[in-house]
Amino acid sequence: MDIDTGTDPYQPFGKVCILAPGLLGASVAMACKKNRVAQTTHIWSRRASSRAKLIGQPWCDEIFASPGEAAEEADLVVICSPVDFIVPLYNEIRQSMKPGALVTDVGSTKSLICRQIHAAADPRVHFIGAHPMAGSEKTSMDYACDSLFHNRPCIITPLEDSNEIATKRIIQFWKSIGAVTFIKTPEDHDEIVAHISHLPHLIAASLCQFLDKHPSDWEQLTSTGLRETTRIASGDPGMWKAIIETNREEIKRALSGYQDDLQRIQSALTNGNMVELVSILEKGKNFRDRLN
Amino acid sequence: MDIDTGTDPYQPFGKVCILAPGLLGASVAMACKKNRVAQTTHIWSRRASSRAKLIGQPWCDEIFASPGEAAEEADLVVICSPVDFIVPLYNEIRQSMKPGALVTDVGSTKSLICRQIHAAADPRVHFIGAHPMAGSEKTSMDYACDSLFHNRPCIITPLEDSNEIATKRIIQFWKSIGAVTFIKTPEDHDEIVAHISHLPHLIAASLCQFLDKHPSDWEQLTSTGLRETTRIASGDPGMWKAIIETNREEIKRALSGYQDDLQRIQSALTNGNMVELVSILEKGKNFRDRLN
Repeated sequence: MDIDTGTDPYQPFGKVCILAPGLLGASVAMACKKNRVAQTTHIWSRRASSRAKLIGQPWCDEIFASPGEAAEEADLVVICSPVDFIVPLYNEIRQSMKPGALVTDVGSTKSLICRQIHAAADPRVHFIGAHPMAGSEKTSMDYACDSLFHNRPCIITPLEDSNEIATKRIIQFWKSIGAVTFIKTPEDHDEIVAHISHLPHLIAASLCQFLDKHPSDWEQLTSTGLRETTRIASGDPGMWKAIIETNREEIKRALSGYQDDLQRIQSALTNGNMVELVSILEKGKNFRDRLN
Repeated sequence: MDIDTGTDPYQPFGKVCILAPGLLGASVAMACKKNRVAQTTHIWSRRASSRAKLIGQPWCDEIFASPGEAAEEADLVVICSPVDFIVPLYNEIRQSMKPGALVTDVGSTKSLICRQIHAAADPRVHFIGAHPMAGSEKTSMDYACDSLFHNRPCIITPLEDSNEIATKRIIQFWKSIGAVTFIKTPEDHDEIVAHISHLPHLIAASLCQFLDKHPSDWEQLTSTGLRETTRIASGDPGMWKAIIETNREEIKRALSGYQDDLQRIQSALTNGNMVELVSILEKGKNFRDRLN
């Protein structure tokens, strides 16, 4: 799908409502203010401690204890909760939203979310899914910053019959807070991130739990290389459980292909086939060098 | 083995000879000068272009085109070549070294190197193997720095009948340029680094070559997380081939254990066993959090 928003005049939003101000949600709010994308930001947080933290923040104009009330007057709602709360939150707010309002999200999986919301959709409210490839293993608003999305990819996943103007506005929104946008179907998105994000997470997490079974004094011998390679394994297991549950089939397929390649390495080691091994190392290096 | 060097008075070396000034070798030379460990540094490089770069460096007192000549007057020789050149270099210099001189190295594998050198050893010259867990995927002296070893682990691998004074001096040497030293047998060393260094390298390299088989436009969607997880895959394939060749059995064993754990994840995904999956993620997180 090719949607050009390049020549459209930029139109800021009036009220932007952010549901769940963790690392991503708080960064969306900060970036909205910095880039003058929102006149006012309305923020809902489930936790009272989180709401207390929002008081006096220059990127938060109003604080709400109910998602429906936070979304009532909004022109745009950005759902920034863990993936398993996105559909329930959409269902909670859609009745109270004003006609023509837009909704987007930051969920790491898209197919289930977009299809479920589509099935339940209120025709007056337009949901266009998104997944900004930004963040870190730290999920608290304490680590948020107004440039988190700057030059980072953001995959937008409209459906075949999504409203075209709404899609353009959501693309504009993510661009206006710094992201580089790409359009994919939810299914293509899920296949891609299974490979480039979910598989790497499982690889790092399983390496760490494998090393955890060995003598604990090995830990003091580890290099910065291992620390870097496994940093993402510090991510929240509950959040990752929900991501994996909602993208299980694609992750299984990606993991299976990767397991086949590890077996090729095991066979090359067994057979002393150094030509095969060097070929794998070289292909890996070529790919990695291109990412820089 | 427990060797205490804590109360020994610190004795600097006179001439320190460094063979092969790449990232590690040049950093050893810089750290020797900064910490006044060496009065003079003698450096040999195989390549004329490298020798030209050494001219005028404040951390290089004399430049040699022959390793034997570079080592002739040295009190300590540090062999910083790729692992497959360490034993040949030792054999090339041992005849020309002065009696009582010490030799250490930076090789990423230790058993083959230490046992082969022991078998060929000149009793007048003491070799005590070492492996500083420092470095990066960049191997050129352009990236060297005098603090590369600061607070980094360095595994020292004396043999049962290694000269005790020589062992203490080599431990002192690595401490004096900033490293935190640990004593292991060469075999224990190789088992440990197969798990905490060589396996992570193969995992990252094989992930990169696996992703390389997928559409190239996926690359622009990758996050900083993937970049970090795979940075080490940019390491030199020739250097890694030599490391893997000299530690094949331990790497095979480590890889096999890791493969079993990936299969546990695959089975958990197939059976929808989220309890098992979360348990793996939690154990991984606990291990990784401890590394910080």
